[in-house]
Amino acid sequence: MQEETKKKFDEYKKLVEKKLDEYIPVKYPEKIWESMRYSVLAGGKRLRPVMALETCRVLCGTYEHAVPTACAIEMLHSQSLIHDDLPCMDNDDYRRGKLTNHKVFGESTAVLAGDALLSFAPQVILQNTPKTVSSDTLLNVLEEFVVAAGAEKLIAGQVVDIDSEGKQISEETLNFIHENKTGALFKLSMRTGAILAGAEEEKLKAVTDYAEKIGLAFQIMDDILDVTSTLEELGKTPGKDAQENKATYVSFYGIETSKKQVASLCKQACDILKEHGIESDVLQAIADSINERVN
Amino acid sequence: MQEETKKKFDEYKKLVEKKLDEYIPVKYPEKIWESMRYSVLAGGKRLRPVMALETCRVLCGTYEHAVPTACAIEMLHSQSLIHDDLPCMDNDDYRRGKLTNHKVFGESTAVLAGDALLSFAPQVILQNTPKTVSSDTLLNVLEEFVVAAGAEKLIAGQVVDIDSEGKQISEETLNFIHENKTGALFKLSMRTGAILAGAEEEKLKAVTDYAEKIGLAFQIMDDILDVTSTLEELGKTPGKDAQENKATYVSFYGIETSKKQVASLCKQACDILKEHGIESDVLQAIADSINERVN
Repeated sequence: MQEETKKKFDEYKKLVEKKLDEYIPVKYPEKIWESMRYSVLAGGKRLRPVMALETCRVLCGTYEHAVPTACAIEMLHSQSLIHDDLPCMDNDDYRRGKLTNHKVFGESTAVLAGDALLSFAPQVILQNTPKTVSSDTLLNVLEEFVVAAGAEKLIAGQVVDIDSEGKQISEETLNFIHENKTGALFKLSMRTGAILAGAEEEKLKAVTDYAEKIGLAFQIMDDILDVTSTLEELGKTPGKDAQENKATYVSFYGIETSKKQVASLCKQACDILKEHGIESDVLQAIADSINERVN
Repeated sequence: MQEETKKKFDEYKKLVEKKLDEYIPVKYPEKIWESMRYSVLAGGKRLRPVMALETCRVLCGTYEHAVPTACAIEMLHSQSLIHDDLPCMDNDDYRRGKLTNHKVFGESTAVLAGDALLSFAPQVILQNTPKTVSSDTLLNVLEEFVVAAGAEKLIAGQVVDIDSEGKQISEETLNFIHENKTGALFKLSMRTGAILAGAEEEKLKAVTDYAEKIGLAFQIMDDILDVTSTLEELGKTPGKDAQENKATYVSFYGIETSKKQVASLCKQACDILKEHGIESDVLQAIADSINERVN
């Protein structure tokens, strides 16, 4: 990543972390708020909120009014990880190099912290978006949010993913999982960023397409890293997919073809933006960094 | 309940059940939608949506535009029961005379069905409330909804409830649990009904106070019935509170005093409505029926 671009990325990231810290209070009963904070403030690349903020900025020149939505999407992402890690789901002990939520706070609190985040995220949008954003735009953003979080998108992906463990699945099913489990939140980030920028339909479509390609590339990268990385590099237990006989892009196509797909998807994504005159070094760098991590 | 009132109540209930059935589709992946439908359509008194619809009707003469919100609140109620029944929470096998969600669909699907309902409920409000309702009113309703569902209300009650098991707790803590775990959804129902009716502040306050009293009476009734009922009467395993050494109103004050409290709260609730000129046979009958079940 270029020095200048990296600086922008880090500024977004710092802002998101500061705001997440501000938005989630510690109040009675402290345990639930601390559990929410533990996972939301556990680091991570903050890729989704950065995408939302940069999309908004590149389309209207400013991103301040997208900050609550960007943070809400990161909360939703954390929620999905907390529940994903539960013993009845993936049963993971580590996440981002730290113990998972239920390992620290217990299973019942982890379930409730996830539940709480699902409602707190739209609450943050409702209570913190500046009044300069129209009520209709806010309703649009909220609808995008709850649809992406629900059984039509994110949860559909999770359900099919769990159901597919140890089974022979088709490429279609694998794509369905990836599109919904990962793609939905990438799309949500860029679409809400664009909606808050007041973007016209054509630009909205372009950033949605970019998000779809990048979401898929990101998931394939995740599958590759699960095979090629150590616990330290990954921040979570590697080799789990193979151990659980899970269908992944790597198990389907092998590592080399998967790497080529990542390269191709990242290029396609950036080409779409260029074709529609959307020039963003940050969005270009996100594609490049996914490609560089595996190639 | 008077014949005429019972008819009204049943009409509301039938409408809510028809609409819940309509709102929740069965689509791919069927398992998650069927799991959501299983719990939401498992019967129950539909007290919360009836309260929302009747509050709206009594304050503005019609309730049609409150139907999506009323149904969304019932979905939220079902969600809280699905997660409450999980092995890591109350570990219940029966609910409303049927096997609990995780007993039928498995634990991971039950967690995800609850998650899905938390997002689907506001989605139903957003996508089905008639356009005659202003965007600002809709935003108000959504804010009431997500705050009530979250860690400041419903989940706060659940967390303190779980933490209190087998412990000596104060009356203050017991009240906190009841106010949030049960009271929050009763208040949400009546407040959103009133907001959708365009009610002035004074009426909004009156129905909120009624809901608070009735919510508490309802929870004390629940504690009493847990001691005095059979599985068949209750539709769920009775005697669990005592078995788990759980603090309840009954364990605090004994059955007789608890019954008197129910009677007093129900009377207070109806007096508040009368004082503010809110005349509703249905809301009166809800209070009466809670009182009659224990006294």
